Amino acid sequence: MKINGKDYQSLWREEETIHFIDQRKLPHTFEIYSARTIDDIAYAIKEMVVRGAPAIGAAAAYGMAIGNKNPERTATVLRTTRPTAYDLFHAIEYMTNAIQQGKNAFTAATLYAQTIISRCKKIGEHGEKLIKDSTRILTHCNAGALATIDYGTALAPIRLAHENKKELFVYADETRPRLQGVLTAWELYHEGIPHVLIADNAAGYYMRKKDIDLVIVGADRIAKNGDFANKIGTYEKAVLAKENGIPFYVAAPASTFDPHLKDGSQIIIEERAKQEMTQIAGITIMPEWISVKNPAFDVTPQKYVSGYITEDGILKK
Amino acid sequence: MKINGKDYQSLWREEETIHFIDQRKLPHTFEIYSARTIDDIAYAIKEMVVRGAPAIGAAAAYGMAIGNKNPERTATVLRTTRPTAYDLFHAIEYMTNAIQQGKNAFTAATLYAQTIISRCKKIGEHGEKLIKDSTRILTHCNAGALATIDYGTALAPIRLAHENKKELFVYADETRPRLQGVLTAWELYHEGIPHVLIADNAAGYYMRKKDIDLVIVGADRIAKNGDFANKIGTYEKAVLAKENGIPFYVAAPASTFDPHLKDGSQIIIEERAKQEMTQIAGITIMPEWISVKNPAFDVTPQKYVSGYITEDGILKK
Repeated sequence: MKINGKDYQSLWREEETIHFIDQRKLPHTFEIYSARTIDDIAYAIKEMVVRGAPAIGAAAAYGMAIGNKNPERTATVLRTTRPTAYDLFHAIEYMTNAIQQGKNAFTAATLYAQTIISRCKKIGEHGEKLIKDSTRILTHCNAGALATIDYGTALAPIRLAHENKKELFVYADETRPRLQGVLTAWELYHEGIPHVLIADNAAGYYMRKKDIDLVIVGADRIAKNGDFANKIGTYEKAVLAKENGIPFYVAAPASTFDPHLKDGSQIIIEERAKQEMTQIAGITIMPEWISVKNPAFDVTPQKYVSGYITEDGILKK
Repeated sequence: MKINGKDYQSLWREEETIHFIDQRKLPHTFEIYSARTIDDIAYAIKEMVVRGAPAIGAAAAYGMAIGNKNPERTATVLRTTRPTAYDLFHAIEYMTNAIQQGKNAFTAATLYAQTIISRCKKIGEHGEKLIKDSTRILTHCNAGALATIDYGTALAPIRLAHENKKELFVYADETRPRLQGVLTAWELYHEGIPHVLIADNAAGYYMRKKDIDLVIVGADRIAKNGDFANKIGTYEKAVLAKENGIPFYVAAPASTFDPHLKDGSQIIIEERAKQEMTQIAGITIMPEWISVKNPAFDVTPQKYVSGYITEDGILKK
């Protein structure tokens, strides 16, 4: 991704140091966090210097490389950072095997990260075909380069279409409560891709006005039947897209399909802290007595999905 | 409405002084703003000490009473406060006629305010019949006592059902960008009505989970065919209610029906300041460069509406 005209990834390796764009500081300031020890990596994951399942996986893989002299202890430290992150466990397992097989740990971790990037790029190449000149696209949350090292999932087709000189316009839902839409706006701003940030409440308004031609979102987990979990509010946008006859696509690597899940009813929804609603950047915006519910994800049934953009192509129903 | 166990209205008259609950300070602190001059009243309307079309109308009526020695000059001052508020102009006209007819201006203004309150109470009595024991109700924005002097429109049926000892539960959308849902939560909290505040993104999630039995919202303007304008996001909730088979009601006085509007396409949507998105309570939450669109209202077609709760009863299609 371009930032101030320079190419960046959300994390990268330089010898035995791992650098991260510090996502806690975004979009207000652009700072690099550098990790040299396992504890530095664990801190980066736990404190959300890095966020997004694929980027967290890559951070864990590099952590295993740093701690390759004692893989068991390293794995134990890393596993406690974000207990529900599937990619984290997957990366630890991948690296444990590589180390046991006597492979160079840093080379293996770099390969792990490069695989994520090349999958995202392929998602972009396939999804880019859905975008014509003057297509207006809605996206929800941040399924961008920050979350996936580079390109993103939902943002990859948009990046590639822009590189291919297609004129397009992006509506980015702000995505309460955590406002990840601001990160999407930050990425698009630095790429020079025309866009606007809107309240989640306004997405339906623009769909009904026929100002949106296409919806692309990411996914955290996809069940065998195509039902998928993603950031809270995704289901709302999917229903509104269907009601307004707008194609709705899910962009995700094939590994997001979970063969153990028959359908979306088996996905458990995480309820997160009240403070995500009542505070923004540490500032309290709602009074203490307020009673809040804060589900972090929702499940969208497959009947609302036009297709799944993966590295292997676009899967239609 | 009850506040800390005491009965209040959002504005009230004491001799020739008009007191307001200062809505700029809510929900963090409860303060009374007292207006003794036309300029005090104009300030209250302009600076949003008072908000909500019916309450603004009543404030203007009292302003005309205070300035009854020179109704023309008073009307000119008041008209410039909130140039798009229909109720404001209506109240000024009503009071100009009353003063011309030699009526006591304070008595006329009080009657104007009392009429609003009694209409809201009747809306509550009719709408209350839709609520059974254990009904779970979603509402959007604040169509409460704060906006209407007392009872509210969408909140009136909820208040009356609670007074009648029905067990009910309210989901209040936070209603970005201005978070009027926090005012709804504040009213419900003080009435002891069980409720929870949710992100606008979560309403669809709870509908699909079958945790919501009924939706009631207010309306700013209703066209002859039943299409209506209300706070941005109302259209989204209406589509989601239909998709999930949940009854969706609009609560508003009959005067909200505008005979000059054939349908919703004639309603012009106000685009409001970027700062409503990028700042909360004066604190900047998004960077300066961010590009924002902020439509304040949307139009919901009548096909999504189960009925209109008015002071004359519930109008079905």
